[in-house]
Amino acid sequence: MNTQDTIIALSTPQGSGAIGVIRLSGPDAISITNQVFAGKDLTQQISHTLHFGLIKDGDVIVDEVVAGLYVAPKSYTKENVVEISCHGSNYIIQQILNLLIKKGARAAKPGEFTLRAFLNGAFDLSQAEAVADLIASDSKASHDVAIQQMRGGFSNELKGLRDQLVHFASMIELELDFAEEDVEFANRDQLRTLILKINSVLQRLISSFEMGNVLKNGVPIVIAGKPNVGKSTLLNALLNEERAIVSEIAGTTRDTIEDELNINGIIFRFIDTAGIRDTADIIEAKGVERTLARMKQAKLIIYMVDALQTPDELQEQLTDLNKIDIPYLAVVNKADLFNDEQKNEFAQKEVLFLSAKENIGVEELKTALLAKVNLLSINTSETLVTNIRHLQALQNTENALANVLNNIDNPITSDFLAMDIKQALHYLGEITGVVTTDDLLENIFSKFCIGK
Amino acid sequence: MNTQDTIIALSTPQGSGAIGVIRLSGPDAISITNQVFAGKDLTQQISHTLHFGLIKDGDVIVDEVVAGLYVAPKSYTKENVVEISCHGSNYIIQQILNLLIKKGARAAKPGEFTLRAFLNGAFDLSQAEAVADLIASDSKASHDVAIQQMRGGFSNELKGLRDQLVHFASMIELELDFAEEDVEFANRDQLRTLILKINSVLQRLISSFEMGNVLKNGVPIVIAGKPNVGKSTLLNALLNEERAIVSEIAGTTRDTIEDELNINGIIFRFIDTAGIRDTADIIEAKGVERTLARMKQAKLIIYMVDALQTPDELQEQLTDLNKIDIPYLAVVNKADLFNDEQKNEFAQKEVLFLSAKENIGVEELKTALLAKVNLLSINTSETLVTNIRHLQALQNTENALANVLNNIDNPITSDFLAMDIKQALHYLGEITGVVTTDDLLENIFSKFCIGK
Repeated sequence: MNTQDTIIALSTPQGSGAIGVIRLSGPDAISITNQVFAGKDLTQQISHTLHFGLIKDGDVIVDEVVAGLYVAPKSYTKENVVEISCHGSNYIIQQILNLLIKKGARAAKPGEFTLRAFLNGAFDLSQAEAVADLIASDSKASHDVAIQQMRGGFSNELKGLRDQLVHFASMIELELDFAEEDVEFANRDQLRTLILKINSVLQRLISSFEMGNVLKNGVPIVIAGKPNVGKSTLLNALLNEERAIVSEIAGTTRDTIEDELNINGIIFRFIDTAGIRDTADIIEAKGVERTLARMKQAKLIIYMVDALQTPDELQEQLTDLNKIDIPYLAVVNKADLFNDEQKNEFAQKEVLFLSAKENIGVEELKTALLAKVNLLSINTSETLVTNIRHLQALQNTENALANVLNNIDNPITSDFLAMDIKQALHYLGEITGVVTTDDLLENIFSKFCIGK
Repeated sequence: MNTQDTIIALSTPQGSGAIGVIRLSGPDAISITNQVFAGKDLTQQISHTLHFGLIKDGDVIVDEVVAGLYVAPKSYTKENVVEISCHGSNYIIQQILNLLIKKGARAAKPGEFTLRAFLNGAFDLSQAEAVADLIASDSKASHDVAIQQMRGGFSNELKGLRDQLVHFASMIELELDFAEEDVEFANRDQLRTLILKINSVLQRLISSFEMGNVLKNGVPIVIAGKPNVGKSTLLNALLNEERAIVSEIAGTTRDTIEDELNINGIIFRFIDTAGIRDTADIIEAKGVERTLARMKQAKLIIYMVDALQTPDELQEQLTDLNKIDIPYLAVVNKADLFNDEQKNEFAQKEVLFLSAKENIGVEELKTALLAKVNLLSINTSETLVTNIRHLQALQNTENALANVLNNIDNPITSDFLAMDIKQALHYLGEITGVVTTDDLLENIFSKFCIGK
């Protein structure tokens, strides 16, 4: 990969804003900018300084700008970096980009700045991936897990364990060289201990994925129940509450927000259950496979009945619900219409009473949702795996180490032992990027936005 | 107006990007940021420096950022300014904004940074308005006139003339104080000379508005002609050529681009002439008032005939067209279907031959368009008035000065003379903002984007 050229991209969003920031990185970032910059001689300035000046194309003034300088290696990419802050006109931005490309810069590919930061050792691969997650984060939970990983996360822990495993691998390689002398450089007991230790870390990380994924991508929820029990009213009651807060934050996700709820910083994603709503008897009805499939994607089902149903009917439906093995929360809507006797009967079923229309019990439902998916006590500063690529690498490592354990005391299989350890090292290395391929990097960084 | 508080806003566009820039301005910009910044003590750093650090809300890390410092008066607003460059997640941006508002900053109103720059004497009002024009500029022409005005434009010229007029005004005020002694402090010949000089500047500026407006807002063009002569095909031929270039530049204006053409950096705006297209005989037809009204908005009409019409018919239609007093360009489409005799006959009518479908003659048409609206030799570094507020103030000044000239030699009307000069000074002052009202400022800056 050629990192000797200087790349350029707009780092701020397209669209209407007061300013735009154009970023250059590479050995010639400063000298290229200096060619079109009327002001101080940028090549003579120290790192981390800001300089007002004009961008000129020959005699034509393109814009008044501020150029921020980062001299290698004191920059994000560890290369020379210039950030040009210009007026936020698409015309001006395009002119400046074109001009600097004419002077020797090259348009950056998606994620290429972060790729360079990774290649230049600013951080490891899992941290680079967390940068993209951080930019995409739209809730407290997804933000917290991303920033935790960007700032190190499980990288250091894995790195330490991998280093110890590398040591054993080289010892066993050495044994192979002296195969005929039957020496044992690698203490098998110590190796076994190390592998068990690594395994326990792997298992903790692997089991954290379910939670990590939920925090990153949201908790999938289905609201089910017979028609007209008030499912849509409940969704609206939940959403209206949140809409204001959400609209303060976002702007981009507004088109899909109807189905997403942010409760205490955690996104709940409501799966379209139109199919379910149309089906009077959700489980018993024939031909509801599609509906069932959707329900099975949920992490939780809110099952709703109303005053027109009896506790016995509810019980019957809940018994059906148990068959699909998804946690559920039974809620009784229109509770304000109940008499005491009805209430008492329902209360024995461990249900939540509410009136979606009157906005009664909605807050309690939110608390119950958090409790039910075990998110009340979530500690987002814990190490969580959120990336399916990492999960797969962890699982592959676990399998390879299982083979190591199987072969560990069998002297005939020292060859295989070495191979299995190498395999485990390979998979572990994939996570932090000690082991990479061009395809892997291409695959990871092509998902970044341009300019990062 | 209270400029003692510290304002904050996102200065980059909303939406998906690698980074966002949050700007603070005010006496406490640096100290407020410092409260949540983990890194160097920002209050101890010099101006024009960049500092890497964390934004923390208590113990929670909100983001890794770079803070750019501008210490008053060495900033855009001449106040302390901090620009925080953070990851481009809407969640993060909102968290940082909320946090800094909690620490004492106030959400900025649209254009409030530029308003402060104006109030603190960084530039005059017409320059402040040019900042908004520059951000909105989407073509070379609109960019060039905006940047010319932002960097001074006619401000200095007007300021010099106004200063001289102020001198006369005070002399005449002095005469009024000594009214009974019949002295003449203000030399009438010199005053007359000055006014004539101002008038010639005013007239030049006023007459530049038509061109300035065209450069800023685009040249309105109507393509007219009988149905099926190929008007839409021509528009498509013109647009297809430009679409690629336009899409490189913009992204935001794509929804309206179907009707806009950038030729040599100048925007041509095509007015919907559906009404015209449906009317076989554009001028003679009854009830085409609406159509005519639209045609009269045009700066140029492209009148199109094809091989099915005779030169005599064209002549007849052009004669009609002359009645509405808008310049036109006669084009003969489907010229590839003509024989030589037909061509010769049409050639006498000073028409342009083309084939929109075959893309023949389209480039020549573009050159002819530029020539016809007299834009071939446009010099955008000339002083041009593009702002209707400025035009009105210039016209009001001109009227007031006409009154001055009428009264100049009439000793009885010294009072009126003084009043008329004051009036002229008022209008001149409105342009550069020497004279302002809260309403005027509100009106101007409310049109700015937030964060500028």
